[in-house]
Amino acid sequence: MSALKIDIHSHFFPRITQAEAARLHPQRAPWLHTDGRHGQIMLGDKPFRPVHDVLWDPLRRIEHLDEQGLDIQVMCATPVMFGYDQPIERALPWAQLMNDRALEMAAVAPDRLKVLAQVPLQDIEAACCEASRAKDCGHVGVQIGNHVGDLDLDDAGLETFLHHCAKEGIPLLVHPWDMMGGERMRKWMLRWLVSMPAETQLGILSLILSGAFERLPESLRICFAHGGGGFAFLLGRVDNAWRHRDIVREDCPNLPSSYVKRFFVDSAVFDPRSLRLLVEVMGADRVMLGSDSPFPLGEQSIGAGVLEHPGLTDADKSLICAGNAREFFGI
Amino acid sequence: MSALKIDIHSHFFPRITQAEAARLHPQRAPWLHTDGRHGQIMLGDKPFRPVHDVLWDPLRRIEHLDEQGLDIQVMCATPVMFGYDQPIERALPWAQLMNDRALEMAAVAPDRLKVLAQVPLQDIEAACCEASRAKDCGHVGVQIGNHVGDLDLDDAGLETFLHHCAKEGIPLLVHPWDMMGGERMRKWMLRWLVSMPAETQLGILSLILSGAFERLPESLRICFAHGGGGFAFLLGRVDNAWRHRDIVREDCPNLPSSYVKRFFVDSAVFDPRSLRLLVEVMGADRVMLGSDSPFPLGEQSIGAGVLEHPGLTDADKSLICAGNAREFFGI
Repeated sequence: MSALKIDIHSHFFPRITQAEAARLHPQRAPWLHTDGRHGQIMLGDKPFRPVHDVLWDPLRRIEHLDEQGLDIQVMCATPVMFGYDQPIERALPWAQLMNDRALEMAAVAPDRLKVLAQVPLQDIEAACCEASRAKDCGHVGVQIGNHVGDLDLDDAGLETFLHHCAKEGIPLLVHPWDMMGGERMRKWMLRWLVSMPAETQLGILSLILSGAFERLPESLRICFAHGGGGFAFLLGRVDNAWRHRDIVREDCPNLPSSYVKRFFVDSAVFDPRSLRLLVEVMGADRVMLGSDSPFPLGEQSIGAGVLEHPGLTDADKSLICAGNAREFFGI
Repeated sequence: MSALKIDIHSHFFPRITQAEAARLHPQRAPWLHTDGRHGQIMLGDKPFRPVHDVLWDPLRRIEHLDEQGLDIQVMCATPVMFGYDQPIERALPWAQLMNDRALEMAAVAPDRLKVLAQVPLQDIEAACCEASRAKDCGHVGVQIGNHVGDLDLDDAGLETFLHHCAKEGIPLLVHPWDMMGGERMRKWMLRWLVSMPAETQLGILSLILSGAFERLPESLRICFAHGGGGFAFLLGRVDNAWRHRDIVREDCPNLPSSYVKRFFVDSAVFDPRSLRLLVEVMGADRVMLGSDSPFPLGEQSIGAGVLEHPGLTDADKSLICAGNAREFFGI
């Protein structure tokens, strides 16, 4: 089959100088140290992650799309750019700067590079305004972190933001960030291998078990990254708990698994057995190709896990690689 | 098929009075409030969990085994009994008291009720001594929590304990407890639905990515509860990270998935699709029937998930329901 291939989960990080970053926070805001094709995302004076130019250079990005046989790639901020813990006076202009940079990067090939905005989620009114402004400027949706400090997606303010996006027709990608577990996760990228799936599981369950999906319109388009963390595998445990323990179901009138038709996940699970389970649990109409590119923890051959899967039908592959994304983002 | 059925993951909680509990800690140690068949596990003056007499009454427990068609059930402490945060002067006698009570409960039907000991893991020397004492007294193994404060299973002291158990032929069940996420997990049993799987994932990865499995003898028998948390589903993500990021593999010389033959998991995943994935990833020789009984989050019809599974062979079912457990615990 020769299908259209749309990658809905990829990151960018613009060329931000240390001086620009200092406007958000002198020590903690991220900036890019580079002298050519390679670089380092820095937090103040500390290196955060080694990166390469596909992350910031639009021409190299397009070359990368060509190499990968990708028709369209949806790019969003690297979560370290969110700045949710900063005062809104600094966080709003920061988000706007990042969003404008994203559009500049996409402008080199606007039919192939699409961008999601970031919003200052610590201030719901400002976040709603920036989401709407970004939509008007050409962003195809918004990426949010799965929480703001101790506030998860069941928080009344965050629910207001979700209502706003549903009303305005702004699709959302939820990305785990600011990962739980503290110092216990300091080694071996455990924050990415343990905490991130847990953050995503918490994000999804915060919407289900709080009853938020009962209040939100069905028109809300919301997608969780990394195949929804461990959600698909753990859903049986959640349903069982809902059935047998009153405090699990007190705010959630229906079986948790009945809500899988209310959200999407990407396909970034890196194992054909996990992908099969994911598609079984979510349905092929609820999974979208997402690579987490161009980071080392992303899919190196974008879409191979879906297209070469022995158990998915051509119709499933077509939905996952493009059809669902076209509808979800209206692209 | 009419197979032997052995449940390797079930809990007990003895009739502990508030005065007995005060010997461990006046406000925080657990005790049983009951006036008959129902009761409440209390922490000081605060109710922790509603429970019923199958949890503490050996005759009711045997009736329960008969109702469930279970030949043998392995019981272990309810993790709230661990007491790892207390001074060893109080924690050691406490563990010994709990272990003696466990044996008393099992004594009513020693061929059918088997017990795992608890050990004061905050003091490795005392933990090793108590594990050996318990083995001599008739415990078939030891249950440990997956961490002691900020120390995970890669900690040198905990690794010493694992070496001791391997040398002495003491099998281990690792149970998640003292769950990460703090106040964000306060509602809807999120500690059980998000944090517990994450704790288990952290426990397994602490052994794999630290290189501990390279140092521990292959004779170590160690099993993780709840199907290993999200491990089986997330393993592709871990392998991918190991392949592409140096800091993931710096202490672990082999692909993470190559270590699945070094540990066991129980079958408590509550979904046939998840169980199929679990058996595919771990192998039928690495999964043991575990119910988490008699709690509401346990399997209500013990073994049904395995025995009625449409995709497992009779040979797989026989291994999972009894064969693996007989070898693992030597029962």
